[in-house]
Amino acid sequence: MRMYDLINKKKNNLKLTKEEIDFIVQGYTGGEIPDYQMSAFLMAVCFNGMDMEETTNLTISMRDSGDTLDLSRIQGTTVDKHSTGGVGDKTSLILGPMIAALGIPVAKMSGRGLGHTGGTIDKLESIPGFSTSISGDLFFENVNKIKLSIMGQTADLAPADKKIYALRDVTATVDCLPLIASSIMSKKLASGADAIVLDVKMGSGAFMKDYDSALALADTMVKIGNMAGKNTSAVITDMNQPLGRNVGNALEVIESIEALNGNAPDDLLQDCVWLAALMLISAGVASDIEKAKEMALATIKDGSALKKFAEFVEAQGGDSSYVFNPSKFKLGEICEPVYAPCDGIVTKIDAQEIGICSLILGGGRETKESIIDLSVGIKIEKKLHDTVKKGEPLCLMYANSKEKLEQAKERFINAYTISESETEELKKHKAVYAYITRDGVNVIN
Amino acid sequence: MRMYDLINKKKNNLKLTKEEIDFIVQGYTGGEIPDYQMSAFLMAVCFNGMDMEETTNLTISMRDSGDTLDLSRIQGTTVDKHSTGGVGDKTSLILGPMIAALGIPVAKMSGRGLGHTGGTIDKLESIPGFSTSISGDLFFENVNKIKLSIMGQTADLAPADKKIYALRDVTATVDCLPLIASSIMSKKLASGADAIVLDVKMGSGAFMKDYDSALALADTMVKIGNMAGKNTSAVITDMNQPLGRNVGNALEVIESIEALNGNAPDDLLQDCVWLAALMLISAGVASDIEKAKEMALATIKDGSALKKFAEFVEAQGGDSSYVFNPSKFKLGEICEPVYAPCDGIVTKIDAQEIGICSLILGGGRETKESIIDLSVGIKIEKKLHDTVKKGEPLCLMYANSKEKLEQAKERFINAYTISESETEELKKHKAVYAYITRDGVNVIN
Repeated sequence: MRMYDLINKKKNNLKLTKEEIDFIVQGYTGGEIPDYQMSAFLMAVCFNGMDMEETTNLTISMRDSGDTLDLSRIQGTTVDKHSTGGVGDKTSLILGPMIAALGIPVAKMSGRGLGHTGGTIDKLESIPGFSTSISGDLFFENVNKIKLSIMGQTADLAPADKKIYALRDVTATVDCLPLIASSIMSKKLASGADAIVLDVKMGSGAFMKDYDSALALADTMVKIGNMAGKNTSAVITDMNQPLGRNVGNALEVIESIEALNGNAPDDLLQDCVWLAALMLISAGVASDIEKAKEMALATIKDGSALKKFAEFVEAQGGDSSYVFNPSKFKLGEICEPVYAPCDGIVTKIDAQEIGICSLILGGGRETKESIIDLSVGIKIEKKLHDTVKKGEPLCLMYANSKEKLEQAKERFINAYTISESETEELKKHKAVYAYITRDGVNVIN
Repeated sequence: MRMYDLINKKKNNLKLTKEEIDFIVQGYTGGEIPDYQMSAFLMAVCFNGMDMEETTNLTISMRDSGDTLDLSRIQGTTVDKHSTGGVGDKTSLILGPMIAALGIPVAKMSGRGLGHTGGTIDKLESIPGFSTSISGDLFFENVNKIKLSIMGQTADLAPADKKIYALRDVTATVDCLPLIASSIMSKKLASGADAIVLDVKMGSGAFMKDYDSALALADTMVKIGNMAGKNTSAVITDMNQPLGRNVGNALEVIESIEALNGNAPDDLLQDCVWLAALMLISAGVASDIEKAKEMALATIKDGSALKKFAEFVEAQGGDSSYVFNPSKFKLGEICEPVYAPCDGIVTKIDAQEIGICSLILGGGRETKESIIDLSVGIKIEKKLHDTVKKGEPLCLMYANSKEKLEQAKERFINAYTISESETEELKKHKAVYAYITRDGVNVIN
């Protein structure tokens, strides 16, 4: 087999066999196939795509390029939730305790944030003492005992994906459905859970800007997961504005605690309830989606999810008094509002820009080596559909540097579109659009 | 400017500016743009193409990446002929003397053959004593005195093209019209002639397999040449069988001498006459194509072209007695026919395969370092349209190794298709299909 012929095959829109895809993935990961051949191949894939079978084979080949986690020490069915990434997305912090409160094990190996989206581990570290650098033994012990534990990713999951992604990132070949789907799913399949629930974000702060492309991605990933033998489902949720109100590490933990106390903004609550419901169905503890939603919601109403969160924080060395008294969290020393420049209705928010504002304030990583400031961030006061008067605050910014604050403020204002009336586009805006199981697509009204 | 953005621009089918194309060509040649970005870009060009302006800008940028020859020491208008490459293509050896006999300077910097097509310099070296390793002074002196000289290529013409071509060759991005056209034309424009006549081959032994793709390439190159200020025209000629009868270095010189003696096979004669006619028009010594063809033909009829060839050979150290007595040429010691396996009509010949047979016999280079055997080759006895009887020779092979001979024989037989009657496709077969000038396309009936 020669890489040249395989590039040519894909260029001529012919289907690649499993053996050919294995040859490419193994050859590239092993260094026998040079970058310049791989990038030409990836560009050909961007134009001619891959069918479901090719995409699944690519995913499996990348999954098998490194470690596969063994979660057999965990009692019960493990369900992994993965979000394609969004601004203000703190669902993991809320969902984990909800699911664990229902007795379903949540074993999360998590990464740190990069760019305009935050990482769950970074957020949790704003609770003093909390650590994800725990041993595998303690991790499994906690999962079995209190049903919830998060540890930093140490295994070498899907190294082929890492190498291929780095190349895509510099050759303009990121934006390609089969490559995105196989990249996400190769890591998920390697991470050992029995079932997978995907949160596919769509909108201005997401990779997929519109419903159709989000649906295509969700559908492809659900099919890959199920073809690879894992019960996989997905929800398409909105990212046309930050999720909830708070963006920034400590701020997002605070909002999560508020949510567990029953005070979540509607979009955040809906996301969590839908994702939890699918996780419950995947775990086999519910079969009806409406009943599953009720079960999930009940963990908030009866306080069991909040209690579970405190228990979890405590078990990983964190100070759980912060959970019951979120005013203890240290926030940026400078707190200033950004004012609306005119009267009107908020009809558009560039969510990615809001994420970048938080990054500018110091709350995110520009490179892997950046040190982040957990105390800074943005508390959004006006969201889509809201009426504003000139001079009213659109948000509050928490900063530790006047200079960064000014930079972020300017960018924040430009991320908002304030119009005289609701646009047609805005009328179609929802928090959750559809969920997809192996049985098909269910549009949510 | 960032290469990433330019890859993305081409991927999104947007037009690149002259500055952007210069950035790519200069950056890649200078080593600032890595291979993996360039190959992704080239693949995007394969899918989205380039318009005439982009293709011309790419050509000019590659032309300007190295030396440009100065032919101002030559008296008169210089016309350069270039063939896209074919099997048995010895037109340069016949055309040169024809044109020079009419007083038009022919100054050829030529390369050696690689793969299944031969090089003019290799062929000429089968004449004892003949050398193309001559000084620039002698080259110009000869061109001015006898109007014909050939020297080996020493200048660094279009190094950007060399580097880009090497990358295309290993990334399946060779087969792309704007890249092929700019590659050929960048070198032609750098080589200093006042006018350019292109021989675009089409058929089983050519890069362009059908008329439409040959026409598209010819048209693009004619436009590039004229946009770059050189009077450029092209002929589309047949390569559905080897040109003429002889394939192999000494054998092709012998056939050229026979042609100059008035004994050329019709396809070879037509090619030479049409190309010569366009060269005469480009040089401004004829304005009517039919009259130009007559002028060209007259140089064969009156023996002036043959005399010019002998004069040229002598001037570069060659033994001109070979020109007047071609039986002196040393040919392979083993000479065996390949017999027709059945009765019928020759309806198809894979010309590229015939070129590979000659390569196998030792007459071509597999790599740049190969040493070639000038005495071996193939004398074709049956061409397209010919009726054959089982057991009649299809060709004579000249070899110096029994083993290579057997290998070549087997391959030769498989390159022939013998049918009961003429096919529809074969009825359309011609020697010369069209010529293209800056005024448009002229189909030849």
